[in-house]
Amino acid sequence: MDLTSDDAAINLGTTHQQVVPITLFVAVLCLCLVIGHLLDENRWVNESITAIIIGLVVGTIILFTSKWKSSQLLRFDEQLFFIYLLPPIIFNAGFSVKKKQFFHNFIPIMLFGVTGVFISTSIVSAGCWWLFPKLGLKGLTISEYLSVGTIFSSTDTVCTLQVLQQDETPLLYSLVFGEGVVNDATSVVLFNAVRNITASSLGGKAALRIVLNFLYLFCTSTVLGVTAGLLASYILRGLGFGRHSSVREISLMILIAYLSYILAELFELSGILTVFFAGVLMSHYAWHNVTESSRITTRHAFAAMSFIAETFIFLYVGMDALDYEKWRMSTLSFWTSIGIYSTVMMLILVGRAAFVFPLSFIANYMDKSEDPSSKITGQHQVVIWWAGLMRGAVSVALAFKQFTLSGVTLDPINATMITTTTVIVLFSTVVFGFLTKPLIRYLLPSNTSNTGSNTSPSRSTSPKEDMTLPLLSFEESASENLSRAKENISMLMERPVYTIHSYWRRFDDAYMRPIFGGARSHDLS
Amino acid sequence: MDLTSDDAAINLGTTHQQVVPITLFVAVLCLCLVIGHLLDENRWVNESITAIIIGLVVGTIILFTSKWKSSQLLRFDEQLFFIYLLPPIIFNAGFSVKKKQFFHNFIPIMLFGVTGVFISTSIVSAGCWWLFPKLGLKGLTISEYLSVGTIFSSTDTVCTLQVLQQDETPLLYSLVFGEGVVNDATSVVLFNAVRNITASSLGGKAALRIVLNFLYLFCTSTVLGVTAGLLASYILRGLGFGRHSSVREISLMILIAYLSYILAELFELSGILTVFFAGVLMSHYAWHNVTESSRITTRHAFAAMSFIAETFIFLYVGMDALDYEKWRMSTLSFWTSIGIYSTVMMLILVGRAAFVFPLSFIANYMDKSEDPSSKITGQHQVVIWWAGLMRGAVSVALAFKQFTLSGVTLDPINATMITTTTVIVLFSTVVFGFLTKPLIRYLLPSNTSNTGSNTSPSRSTSPKEDMTLPLLSFEESASENLSRAKENISMLMERPVYTIHSYWRRFDDAYMRPIFGGARSHDLS
Repeated sequence: MDLTSDDAAINLGTTHQQVVPITLFVAVLCLCLVIGHLLDENRWVNESITAIIIGLVVGTIILFTSKWKSSQLLRFDEQLFFIYLLPPIIFNAGFSVKKKQFFHNFIPIMLFGVTGVFISTSIVSAGCWWLFPKLGLKGLTISEYLSVGTIFSSTDTVCTLQVLQQDETPLLYSLVFGEGVVNDATSVVLFNAVRNITASSLGGKAALRIVLNFLYLFCTSTVLGVTAGLLASYILRGLGFGRHSSVREISLMILIAYLSYILAELFELSGILTVFFAGVLMSHYAWHNVTESSRITTRHAFAAMSFIAETFIFLYVGMDALDYEKWRMSTLSFWTSIGIYSTVMMLILVGRAAFVFPLSFIANYMDKSEDPSSKITGQHQVVIWWAGLMRGAVSVALAFKQFTLSGVTLDPINATMITTTTVIVLFSTVVFGFLTKPLIRYLLPSNTSNTGSNTSPSRSTSPKEDMTLPLLSFEESASENLSRAKENISMLMERPVYTIHSYWRRFDDAYMRPIFGGARSHDLS
Repeated sequence: MDLTSDDAAINLGTTHQQVVPITLFVAVLCLCLVIGHLLDENRWVNESITAIIIGLVVGTIILFTSKWKSSQLLRFDEQLFFIYLLPPIIFNAGFSVKKKQFFHNFIPIMLFGVTGVFISTSIVSAGCWWLFPKLGLKGLTISEYLSVGTIFSSTDTVCTLQVLQQDETPLLYSLVFGEGVVNDATSVVLFNAVRNITASSLGGKAALRIVLNFLYLFCTSTVLGVTAGLLASYILRGLGFGRHSSVREISLMILIAYLSYILAELFELSGILTVFFAGVLMSHYAWHNVTESSRITTRHAFAAMSFIAETFIFLYVGMDALDYEKWRMSTLSFWTSIGIYSTVMMLILVGRAAFVFPLSFIANYMDKSEDPSSKITGQHQVVIWWAGLMRGAVSVALAFKQFTLSGVTLDPINATMITTTTVIVLFSTVVFGFLTKPLIRYLLPSNTSNTGSNTSPSRSTSPKEDMTLPLLSFEESASENLSRAKENISMLMERPVYTIHSYWRRFDDAYMRPIFGGARSHDLS
């Protein structure tokens, strides 16, 4: 209801003021969908690029028709983003994550997703703090530099995931997807942790406080999400909802997930992490307690909600880029602006390289298995580095949260930071996005055979998946079991993560599944 | 975003102000769902009653904790209702309507749903105009009396539909459901048609203008809805969305349906009618062009959206009933108020009786078939009369639209009309709702056997359905075809609606389906 500006709604009080922008926006969303579908086979573009470019075009048209007054259909309220658009995206990420692979690659994912954000934030913050004043941009506080660091450390891996084939490079896919999700959560949590840092409190103690604050937020948010997921599973199992209607089941899953998110926001925790874990737990337990039609519906309906929200955001970013007011507000000269953009872009490139390659080395070192397919190769490292260069919705939302009040900015420095974020998101999504498909084809030539024919129904199972299956299937002949048991023991000794996973599985089967429900064996990923 | 009051949001500017009410509301919604499920087998209550009662309880708690300041979590904006809550409810009604039965009983449905609303509105308006001043309520304009008439002529048949068994009394179910949908649309269209009538213009010309205005709105809205439905079908068929993802298919259906609704609102047509026909057309054509998983998902996801929206509204009605401000604003004495409520209630009872019984007689007279199961019996007439006595969401929304400005009323007469609407909705839903199950069991004793065991999977096909099947199935043996062909010819001569239906079917098969897609034969209802 607050999509149009409050003033307009109050002054005019007519339905039209609210309905016109919504109508146009929905129409443009439909257009995006159709054009996105038509360009699906194109080797350069993807959905995000399509949405941004359509947003730019529509923004231009509005700018002309409104006589240079505005390029926006809707005033972007960061509340709109955090309360309505982000939850479905993250919930769906948790709900559709391949839990088996996610937890198998838990250590590298956490290294990239958590440690990586800390390293990247430090480098970007320090770089900005050092270089911005030299370029003529002064007046940012320490807390703002740190915020800028987190804003530009949040990645958007959608581009890359659209190109990677999950079945051909399962490790790489899992790492990129897992890092993307953990990165989203980490950057939001870290953003909240650094917002209240002041210059006087900077130093070792402050760093410690950030880390402690981060750990506190991380743990409490996770606990809340897990609780919500388990609660939903318990209710759906205990009360036997499916006997009567799948409508109630679906509604209950959506409402409890949303409740967990909004509760986390209420307690100033990380809703993003909470709803992610609620999604993971629901797909692990609750999903198995509902009727067949509810299962199919939740899978697709949650994905559709997430898809609409994502398209909405990219479309908005495109339109917002032409917001005349913000550009006028920013008082910097053209060349200074270019300097700022290049600096930030360079810091993003360096900041990401500074953790992907060292951390990959550590992950490879820690991985004791002899199996070469579990190592992160050089090509993979470059793909991971590249995959995280795009900046997207979360960056925009965080920037709006830091530098505007309900979407409006009146300060030149704040306006500069908003325009910088917009430029970085546009540039990285469009330019880097365009290059992603060709780059991945060059680095991973085996991928090319299948690209453009996503419909091939039968794909050979990858070697990696074959290797992990013995651990997870219970319906085998005795002789197979014996030979596999030997394998298992040697593997458990070699790979500590597997041991943890195995203990968890036993605990899960013995205590959790009887209470909360779930698949009979672990062969469902 | 506008769920909390604007003032609060602007003055305090914190996230908490918006998040707290949303959190509580979502939590209460979850509670409603679980309690509604637990009470499912109860012979007295249904979902609407549960939601209203929970709303009352929560309202009381808020009233106490806020120290008599407010009983509301959210300010009800009639925009919220018309822009976000109503479209999913009506779209799902259109999407899930049994088209075969709906069109077979087209004449009685239209008699009840359109002519009935006109008769009921005339009686309620005239009665109020005659009795209100005598009770001491003066100051309403002619246009407001007419609005009151339409507000209290809009029915809520959900209660009754929960009790009726579609397979046991197909005719009755189809009539009640069909009337409910058409009634919703008619009352909204009529409401918009009478809003601008002034005292000076009242007379034969005004009545003609209302009818013409109504016909214009009815036709244009239908055309828009049909166009939207066909467009969605054509896009989904022509561009072969399913090849890539059902996510896009689902998103496109939702977005085009919503676009049609909001476009209708923009052009001041009836969005309710538009989105209803968009739903009908999409389930007739588009639904058959999408993948299997999209079909299951859309069926259940749309129903879930509708369910959440409905529960939301009833919950709100319960909370709003305790709104202290409105009660204080209304300056009438206790006994005058009781007089007003009783008068309106009586007018509703009379107004509905005045068209159900005569129109049933006409419908029976027009139905030339010898088959007794196609006649509306006396018991059925009483059930139809009863089913339409409940007042629900649409009444509340229309009352808010007529008598408040963004949910706030400052005028004593307007406040009285709002409280009257609330009381009528509460009373009719709770009291009449409680009596519905016992009444229907008394009137239709055959129903009792199955009530309370909704899960019985195999039900005998009703005679009615057996009779209509020959018209609709193409895969039969030759001998059966011959005997049925004779039946068909005699039936076509006897029942004009069947003839129209048959012509339509030929046209549909020859021209529409090849372009827009659809089931291969008509056996899908």
